[in-house]
Amino acid sequence: MLGAETFGREYLERRILTEFALAAHIGVSVESVTDRTLVLRAPLAANANYKGTAFGGSLFSLGALTGWAWLTRYIAQHELAADAVIQASEIRYLAPVTGEFRACLHAPHPDDVAKFRKMLQRAGRGRIRLIVDVYDDTVLATQFEGVFAAALRDGNP
Amino acid sequence: MLGAETFGREYLERRILTEFALAAHIGVSVESVTDRTLVLRAPLAANANYKGTAFGGSLFSLGALTGWAWLTRYIAQHELAADAVIQASEIRYLAPVTGEFRACLHAPHPDDVAKFRKMLQRAGRGRIRLIVDVYDDTVLATQFEGVFAAALRDGNP
Repeated sequence: MLGAETFGREYLERRILTEFALAAHIGVSVESVTDRTLVLRAPLAANANYKGTAFGGSLFSLGALTGWAWLTRYIAQHELAADAVIQASEIRYLAPVTGEFRACLHAPHPDDVAKFRKMLQRAGRGRIRLIVDVYDDTVLATQFEGVFAAALRDGNP
Repeated sequence: MLGAETFGREYLERRILTEFALAAHIGVSVESVTDRTLVLRAPLAANANYKGTAFGGSLFSLGALTGWAWLTRYIAQHELAADAVIQASEIRYLAPVTGEFRACLHAPHPDDVAKFRKMLQRAGRGRIRLIVDVYDDTVLATQFEGVFAAALRDGNP
């Protein structure tokens, strides 16, 4: 496993902004990242709707990018030649978001991570469920749950 | 009920682009609308990810805007003083989107629409489940299902 310092805030923010055309318009930034935590944030103005609260599509997007970013970082850190994609998701909107919002990953259970990695290496395809809570200041505003899959690239081990 | 011609393609497109800051960046346009159908579209380039396919957050956003737009149009057409919001959603990604994509509303059942309207008028709050399929050309790429709610504005009947 490569050093965590190689895959810090700047690494992940650059990947998100380079690899998703819409991310710059959403105003995504990486607040913090460790092997078991990840927090993305976005400002209200770029994502506001007619009520002056955050658009549900923006809240979903930040949740999806948080899951993707965690899995992509895990793949890079473990030198696995695979790409991560989202397969399915459920989202619940609990309270309107009236300011900058933060998407906080629930640390996945180590057993689930091990299972994902084993599947990817043995079958060429792994899957993991990731949960992301989106906060407006201290208020839990949105609960996001996504199933993410990764497949080994052709021609790679 | 006001005439359908008042609430056509241009009316709905203007509302979406005016009321959601992100919609212009997604490149949303209204392809067609009737009382029972609604098709929104968006180009790939603005929504592309690192694989050259559409970002899951953009596909979700177009589905959510389709549901919101249908309900908002219904509310306006029936002169109800209410705002529509999304409460919850499920989405499944079936195939990657490699070009312009189109979000097509399933016509809601008239009984569900009648129930929504009755609840809104009696209790001040109604709810309806709307289904949107997103197509890449003729391929069904994404299935979106959302629960949308509307609440009467304060001080209005």
